[in-house]
Amino acid sequence: MIDIFTTGGTIDKVYFDALSEYHIGPTPLPNMLAENNVFVPHRVTQLMRKDSLELTDSDRAEIRAAIVASDADKVLITHGTDTMVQTASALADIKGKTIVLTGAMQPATLRNSDAEFNVGFALAAVQTLAHGVYIAMNGEVFDSATARKDRSAHRFMHE
Amino acid sequence: MIDIFTTGGTIDKVYFDALSEYHIGPTPLPNMLAENNVFVPHRVTQLMRKDSLELTDSDRAEIRAAIVASDADKVLITHGTDTMVQTASALADIKGKTIVLTGAMQPATLRNSDAEFNVGFALAAVQTLAHGVYIAMNGEVFDSATARKDRSAHRFMHE
Amino acid sequence: MIDIFTTGGTIDKVYFDALSEYHIGPTPLPNMLAENNVFVPHRVTQLMRKDSLELTDSDRAEIRAAIVASDADKVLITHGTDTMVQTASALADIKGKTIVLTGAMQPATLRNSDAEFNVGFALAAVQTLAHGVYIAMNGEVFDSATARKDRSAHRFMHE
Amino acid sequence: MIDIFTTGGTIDKVYFDALSEYHIGPTPLPNMLAENNVFVPHRVTQLMRKDSLELTDSDRAEIRAAIVASDADKVLITHGTDTMVQTASALADIKGKTIVLTGAMQPATLRNSDAEFNVGFALAAVQTLAHGVYIAMNGEVFDSATARKDRSAHRFMHE
Repeated sequence: MIDIFTTGGTIDKVYFDALSEYHIGPTPLPNMLAENNVFVPHRVTQLMRKDSLELTDSDRAEIRAAIVASDADKVLITHGTDTMVQTASALADIKGKTIVLTGAMQPATLRNSDAEFNVGFALAAVQTLAHGVYIAMNGEVFDSATARKDRSAHRFMHE
Repeated sequence: MIDIFTTGGTIDKVYFDALSEYHIGPTPLPNMLAENNVFVPHRVTQLMRKDSLELTDSDRAEIRAAIVASDADKVLITHGTDTMVQTASALADIKGKTIVLTGAMQPATLRNSDAEFNVGFALAAVQTLAHGVYIAMNGEVFDSATARKDRSAHRFMHE
Repeated sequence: MIDIFTTGGTIDKVYFDALSEYHIGPTPLPNMLAENNVFVPHRVTQLMRKDSLELTDSDRAEIRAAIVASDADKVLITHGTDTMVQTASALADIKGKTIVLTGAMQPATLRNSDAEFNVGFALAAVQTLAHGVYIAMNGEVFDSATARKDRSAHRFMHE
Repeated sequence: MIDIFTTGGTIDKVYFDALSEYHIGPTPLPNMLAENNVFVPHRVTQLMRKDSLELTDSDRAEIRAAIVASDADKVLITHGTDTMVQTASALADIKGKTIVLTGAMQPATLRNSDAEFNVGFALAAVQTLAHGVYIAMNGEVFDSATARKDRSAHRFMHE
């Protein structure tokens, strides 16, 4: 069993005409996994709908508690990219689980979004990596202790 | 360095109006990897453009030779799904490399294709799995010795 | 009321993995019109599912009969492009109706299909043109008596 | 010749990761028209990049001046939907031209955008309607003097 927790971030953004702006909507993960014919046992839980810049210590405690409470040892988290490293740090001392964080630079609702590719990538990473906390972005697995997002380059780097 | 060899199959199919049918076209992999902001070192080589039902022993020998000749120990192959298991068998005794085969049930040119998800999945698998030959489809890693495609269910199964 | 009759053709093609080829499926028109927030009164009827090269005189008689039997004076027909001109000829003497034929060079299921654009274009044409039979393709209205498809140029021309 | 002027609005919005929000980008019209195989003579000019709620009287005077200065009698304008009616009013007394305004409820960059359908629709309307100012949205032509946007219903209505 793989536990998938969604927290919001760009990957979950949909466009609201009535507000003339983007807001975080229902997670696209269940539809995405079904459309891509994923049959490996998994559960999707939408924990929160927040831009990652708005995540508080209390939110991170809630994410952490959900992971600890899960009976799964494979945990995939979708998350905004701006504070993904910070959340990974807050999870660093959880033992006995493979925890992989991913997200997207472009909302899943966009034609050219990196969402499907990144979730596919992360879903393999969470099934194949040893216990630990990882960031899976840009077609690469990053050690969460030494990763950082380079905003101007639209990518994660090894520090 | 990851060597990516494309061989054709559904993933590479494009629609030709002049023929009123689908044919295998140029591989979408380089554009797909660029659009998904993949920076991990890789090379894409289009080995052939064939439906996998048309692949011959000679074609499989060519795929094998390309892998053996490569200086990379991580090799990703895109391939039609119908004979993916058969090609994997022909590669089974290559030592010292992680070889991952993937493909798609729907051409990458389609709105709801599983191509991006599957390539993302396979790209993580090839970087994280031990040496050996694997099939990466349906969000799952299959041992190539015991995988089979269930055509009516549109998915791969463990035998 | 606008009567929309679908007959098949490239616009309706979907990919069947089990056959490794494209076949004509259920018409995408109802979903397409709903997704594009079309509220103008209309009905969609799938008359047949044929490649236009396979349409017979009997099929054309059936299309003609459906139009004549309709109480609507605005009729939109989706049709394969290869024999669209021929079908238009078979409808040329229907009086008192605006009949517009459209189709697509790429199936509606493709990312870069011209299907939505063409149906949008034809839906305006059928509401604004005088009675007669027209072909609406390539962002242009063609007199069905002088239009022809240039297969190599992927477009319709005025003869 | 058809003159196409773009002014911004939802149709032109692209997602900027660095800002975690949507901004108006380069107009998608030239690519969209090319991808849809439009060969009818036309020119695309990006007049401005503004959300329609931010358009000033001075902006409307600029749009008006561009139309008056054009030697084309067919003018298509892409525009944000929120003040499309107001801009249409500012153009109402231009004589000798068919002026059609269209836009989208969802950015053209989105998978399920109504942008292509609406531009296709408007391109037919501008070629077939008598001189005057029209709004082409929701698969319908609206008299700009009596149209209004119902924000909660995501559609235009006849008043």
